[in-house]
Amino acid sequence: MCEANAYLYKGGEQEELLMERVDRVVPQNGEIYLENIFGQRKMIAAKIKELNLVDHRIILEMIAAEETV
Amino acid sequence: MCEANAYLYKGGEQEELLMERVDRVVPQNGEIYLENIFGQRKMIAAKIKELNLVDHRIILEMIAAEETV
Repeated sequence: MCEANAYLYKGGEQEELLMERVDRVVPQNGEIYLENIFGQRKMIAAKIKELNLVDHRIILEMIAAEETV
Repeated sequence: MCEANAYLYKGGEQEELLMERVDRVVPQNGEIYLENIFGQRKMIAAKIKELNLVDHRIILEMIAAEETV
């Protein structure tokens, strides 16, 4: 299976695991909807920083205040 | 390997294959950088519409004019 883990980038080397084995990722209204293969769902007030699919990694980051136009 | 194909959504049932076997996807300056396992690279003036990792699909869509703030 080719799902990936979703992490929240926290600067430097730090990141927080948000959800394991994510299948669907949908940006919606400035947030990110995540759904994994177990049917778990989350909305995260973040944006996509980077995907590394071969490494099974989805990296999100918080939206900086100055970017919310 | 768990890379995915990147498609450009064109409305309705239409989509265009942009790149096969994409590993890295990085949003940058309002565009999307794609890199595949063969080392091919593309910048696309689009945003991420949806990821379906189990189906190996990355769907991009053009940025609508009214969204460019």
